[in-house]
Amino acid sequence: MGSSRTSSRRPGRAERAVPLPLAAANDDAAGSTPARRTRGKVGARRATASAALARTVRYAVVGLGHIAQIAILPAFAQAQQNSTLAALVSDDPEKLRKLSRRYGINRVCSYDDANELFESGEIDAVYITLPNSMHREYTERAARAGLHVLCEKPMAVTAEDCERMIEITRENAVKLMIAYRLHFERANLEAVEMAHSGTLGDLRFFSSNFSMQVAPENFRSSRKLGGGPLYDIGIYCINAARAAFAAEPIRVLATAVTRRDQRFKEIPETVSVVMKFPQERVASFTCSFGGADRSAYEIVGTKGSITLDPAYEYAQGVEYTLRLGKRKREKHYEKSDQFAPELIYFSNCILNDREPEPSGEEGIADIRVIEALNRSIETGKWVSPELSQRRRRPTLRQEIRRPGIQPPPLVGGVHSATM
Amino acid sequence: MGSSRTSSRRPGRAERAVPLPLAAANDDAAGSTPARRTRGKVGARRATASAALARTVRYAVVGLGHIAQIAILPAFAQAQQNSTLAALVSDDPEKLRKLSRRYGINRVCSYDDANELFESGEIDAVYITLPNSMHREYTERAARAGLHVLCEKPMAVTAEDCERMIEITRENAVKLMIAYRLHFERANLEAVEMAHSGTLGDLRFFSSNFSMQVAPENFRSSRKLGGGPLYDIGIYCINAARAAFAAEPIRVLATAVTRRDQRFKEIPETVSVVMKFPQERVASFTCSFGGADRSAYEIVGTKGSITLDPAYEYAQGVEYTLRLGKRKREKHYEKSDQFAPELIYFSNCILNDREPEPSGEEGIADIRVIEALNRSIETGKWVSPELSQRRRRPTLRQEIRRPGIQPPPLVGGVHSATM
Repeated sequence: MGSSRTSSRRPGRAERAVPLPLAAANDDAAGSTPARRTRGKVGARRATASAALARTVRYAVVGLGHIAQIAILPAFAQAQQNSTLAALVSDDPEKLRKLSRRYGINRVCSYDDANELFESGEIDAVYITLPNSMHREYTERAARAGLHVLCEKPMAVTAEDCERMIEITRENAVKLMIAYRLHFERANLEAVEMAHSGTLGDLRFFSSNFSMQVAPENFRSSRKLGGGPLYDIGIYCINAARAAFAAEPIRVLATAVTRRDQRFKEIPETVSVVMKFPQERVASFTCSFGGADRSAYEIVGTKGSITLDPAYEYAQGVEYTLRLGKRKREKHYEKSDQFAPELIYFSNCILNDREPEPSGEEGIADIRVIEALNRSIETGKWVSPELSQRRRRPTLRQEIRRPGIQPPPLVGGVHSATM
Repeated sequence: MGSSRTSSRRPGRAERAVPLPLAAANDDAAGSTPARRTRGKVGARRATASAALARTVRYAVVGLGHIAQIAILPAFAQAQQNSTLAALVSDDPEKLRKLSRRYGINRVCSYDDANELFESGEIDAVYITLPNSMHREYTERAARAGLHVLCEKPMAVTAEDCERMIEITRENAVKLMIAYRLHFERANLEAVEMAHSGTLGDLRFFSSNFSMQVAPENFRSSRKLGGGPLYDIGIYCINAARAAFAAEPIRVLATAVTRRDQRFKEIPETVSVVMKFPQERVASFTCSFGGADRSAYEIVGTKGSITLDPAYEYAQGVEYTLRLGKRKREKHYEKSDQFAPELIYFSNCILNDREPEPSGEEGIADIRVIEALNRSIETGKWVSPELSQRRRRPTLRQEIRRPGIQPPPLVGGVHSATM
């Protein structure tokens, strides 16, 4: 795979016309020998696709903050089958120096020089892990250079930004995926499966709490940078509710509270939300940047319920309790690497010319809900977000599992998310 | 104690002028010999009080439905220290016949003949466990006859009814207590204690789910009888949030959903609620008569959280998980009898002339919140309930523990609450 690192041939763009079965992009279940399996299956169909599949996708990681350092950069070691860390982009020379040494990366650059890197032919894709307000700009820059875009959630700060991101990646025939790591995580996918399969009966309601003490000076406290509890953690609750009901909310309402605290000068501290879904279903959640750690959700149907607690974590294992009548089943999943699966999946989408499931359309849906919630906070009224029903939802078939990793030491001026 | 059964002397009314320390009414911790201890302490103060304490309070249980049969009637065996089951009131001859035999009760009567019983001098207090819409009428009838009133929650269907109940019990100088069984339950009181003591830090939010499949033909499905998920189970969530924050909600909002189902012709199936409290705190909950069993709440502060799950149960044990930083402590309380404590506490209040903590004022507060929530459901808007700050809240000092009991077989036409 290493030989492709210096090639200027970009996988994915030329193969767009090759139709492949849905399974192909997901044919990388943990434990098997995914690259070979995928290659064999698809190679039989068409030689060019086969050639593409033999290659690796070369990524530039854009932004070297906390999540990049503790999760994204180390994940490449477990995504070698189709993903290569090829370049680092940051304005912090210390980060570039130390991290390029740590990962053996020759190609580093500042934000100002990013366009040159993007046009160099040395990379195929970017993983954007910048503050939320910068997602649009770097998606545009990458797409114009013909690079595929894997962008952290939230997709952007406004639906308008999201629309532009979808547009420009389409225009440039590159893939766009929003990094919803839980779309590949077993416990969350099992919950969705049980919700959709009828195991829980007819679904009635969803509820969730997601809370942490956000660190001061983190971009999450900055309105300008697209911070706030809804964008950063509430989005997980929204996304989980939408996935559970396989539907979009019809009307949403939110209320926000705050505290005298330098962290909450620009953003609310805590937001409580109620959302009405089709088929007389309701979801509610509270997300907070000023509460102790909580990370749980619950889907309740007529016959049973499933409670994930912790639900949204990547730094620890995920657990669920399934209740059916008087029976109660608990299941614990050890901490896993939730970032390598995103890379593997997205690279497979690029190499097999498949539209990623957590697409731009998935990303914009959450942002439209958040915009509606923000209007509701301002007006005190119910707001109807404008959403179209999504064709695709996360399913168990998307599960990819890689072992948990020990996060490496941080370098440079990094603001961890929590205190 | 048995000798007092035929006495026409009613405890409590004459002793109203005797001031006693707060501790007296609570001096009945499980495991000790409470009657003797209380008697010794108070007896030293005044002879008449001492005489009253030597006696027992004779109860008529009014209404012999599910909860009376499985919980209230059997509870008297564990409240013998100061409470005696003296009469049964029902319109079902089979219930009267079988239950009077089971409990060795000579005095039974129909609702029409209740006034005669109330005036007979054979009882001192009533435990009203009728459908919600009948609470006011029987409180009035009992109070006029000079009987103390222990009334099941919800106190009544309207705040107006509640006001009248408070008024008439005051006019007749009898005690009124609303049967909030969790005000005497250890795990719930520990949660309140941790909320108030600062263990969890500054409180931020509360959330809860309470859900069950209500049985068809149960009065809980009847609007006329004061049914519906808010009155029956949502009230626990409201009460727990108020206790946790030791405050009253400023603004509340609710949304209701339903289903095509004979059970939900008159009432909503599921109600989701958000409540804003003083000091920038927020509570949310979902209660449902059409979801599988859930019974949990969570109080989250700046330093930690406590999750009760199950929280509101009496037919099983109660568990909590306390999270403080990275530490997690789980505590399980075996199933206990939550009804004997109510009897013991209320009888002590009568015998010691103390105002019960879950008073009429406590009961009306929840009803005012429910009325505000119902207006919010109708209008889609936030509603401010008119509430005055309560002086007293449940505390750990109120804990009374008695062992769990095996519910006896049901007799007569009883509609269990759940399917």
